[in-house]
Amino acid sequence: MGRIICAGLGPGDPDLISVKSDRAIRGADHVAYFRKIGRQGQARRIVQDMLRADVTEYPMEYPVTTELPFDSPEYRHALAGFYDDWAARLADLAATRDVVVLCEGDPFFYGSFMHLYTRLQGRAEVEVIPGITGMTGCWHATGTPITWGDDVLTVLMGTLPEEDLVHHMQGADALVIMKTGRNLPRVRRALATVGRLQDAWLVERGTMPGQRIERLAEVEDHDCPYFAIVIVHGHGRRPEMEAGE
Amino acid sequence: MGRIICAGLGPGDPDLISVKSDRAIRGADHVAYFRKIGRQGQARRIVQDMLRADVTEYPMEYPVTTELPFDSPEYRHALAGFYDDWAARLADLAATRDVVVLCEGDPFFYGSFMHLYTRLQGRAEVEVIPGITGMTGCWHATGTPITWGDDVLTVLMGTLPEEDLVHHMQGADALVIMKTGRNLPRVRRALATVGRLQDAWLVERGTMPGQRIERLAEVEDHDCPYFAIVIVHGHGRRPEMEAGE
Ligand SMILES: C[S@@+](CC[C@H](N)C(=O)[O-])C[C@H]1O[C@@H](n2cnc3c(N)ncnc32)[C@H](O)[C@@H]1O
Ligand SMILES: C[S@@+](CC[C@H](N)C(=O)[O-])C[C@H]1O[C@@H](n2cnc3c(N)ncnc32)[C@H](O)[C@@H]1O
Repeated sequence: MGRIICAGLGPGDPDLISVKSDRAIRGADHVAYFRKIGRQGQARRIVQDMLRADVTEYPMEYPVTTELPFDSPEYRHALAGFYDDWAARLADLAATRDVVVLCEGDPFFYGSFMHLYTRLQGRAEVEVIPGITGMTGCWHATGTPITWGDDVLTVLMGTLPEEDLVHHMQGADALVIMKTGRNLPRVRRALATVGRLQDAWLVERGTMPGQRIERLAEVEDHDCPYFAIVIVHGHGRRPEMEAGE
Repeated sequence: MGRIICAGLGPGDPDLISVKSDRAIRGADHVAYFRKIGRQGQARRIVQDMLRADVTEYPMEYPVTTELPFDSPEYRHALAGFYDDWAARLADLAATRDVVVLCEGDPFFYGSFMHLYTRLQGRAEVEVIPGITGMTGCWHATGTPITWGDDVLTVLMGTLPEEDLVHHMQGADALVIMKTGRNLPRVRRALATVGRLQDAWLVERGTMPGQRIERLAEVEDHDCPYFAIVIVHGHGRRPEMEAGE
């Protein structure tokens, strides 16, 4: 009887993987990870120097998406089938061996593994190892604390409609906006509407080789990196008040 | 020339410390950490089995607080003096040696170290190692993913006024409320007002010995643990839609 072990990888720097995930990855005989067809995949790249020479790899390749719009019922159906198939395959493998599934950042925070996790309930023993979230790596990349005192932090996806972005940005002290890419111009407009554009930073590939940090206001409109996070720091509603624990 | 290295400790389980922090802590000759007078301190407890036998320890004890109300100018003044003094002391030490400062969770996420970090600018070389946040450990403790798809996550401090809690809870999909303690009855009322009390979990000492998980609605009014986080999970605004990266 084996297990599925989902190992959180953290933001990208292999040194930021937890001791527990590090041990699971280095010891793994069987490793699975998501990727786009034709790509090495971000998760696989992070563990490049950690895998055993004789490891068996299971790249889980997202169904081709060029013909179908992301929000069409057909695409959702294809994706559901993809998760169903891999859940069945992993459950089979776990009957006789341990399989380590790699997951960027923290697996329970907007992670693709969650779609396998729900499907694996009752079919295999699953352990999930937390990771440092990508946003944590990104606020460290800026060299500035994200939240102080009573600050409210709101985490938003760039995929939200502009009016929802504006609504949720209003009143928050610190902001994190993920899933940027083609949504970046809309995110920028929403930040300008609530008067926070001048305080916003774009962090691409936080803690990874090629890390890039720019003021969002200075990023060109056609420059829309996908693997990036927008950060607006809080400054404390009542600074200096807390004596920690 | 030495350095100040702030090592994020993660939520509590020593196995969830990053490889980089783990190395810094195990190799440290000089270790500093915050604690209340008369206590061992949470941070010190986490690294109990990791420190060298000959390590020199610098417990940074918060000024006595029994006489002064937390929000009085006198208390704020005492606390500012305390941070000033320790920043000066650490800068002195760093002139000739490395000092590792321990910090629970992630140091840049509502961490006390941030008050030293700002004061140390230009006076010592400072490196900050990210950690898994306490909230990440707590949502893993519940065994359920915190956010899906386009979910909005809002992080709130239990110290906020009730109307602010209600205002920011409205419209969020997933919620994290930290700094519970005596604020817990107010947090519970705010969650009831926005109709989310039945979905809320209280996680005390997440990933630590004595971890406790309860439905918040079932926790007694006089039961107000300080080292606890309230979690309300998101369920996805448009589930199944994302194909990861
Ligand atoms: C499907 S979400 C996965 C989140 C992941 N589970 C986590 O805990 O960070 C993918 C998004 O995460 C963000 N992201 C994650 N890590 C990042 C990093 N190191 N640098 C920049 N963006 C990152 C990007 O916005 C990307 O669109
Ligand atoms: C001053 S904040 C420090 C946050 C820390 N820097 C982090 O990243 O989690 C202290 C609060 O964190 C929360 N907390 C942190 N770790 C926790 C854990 N393992 N279990 C429960 N609560 C935790 C509690 O709500 C506590 O009031």
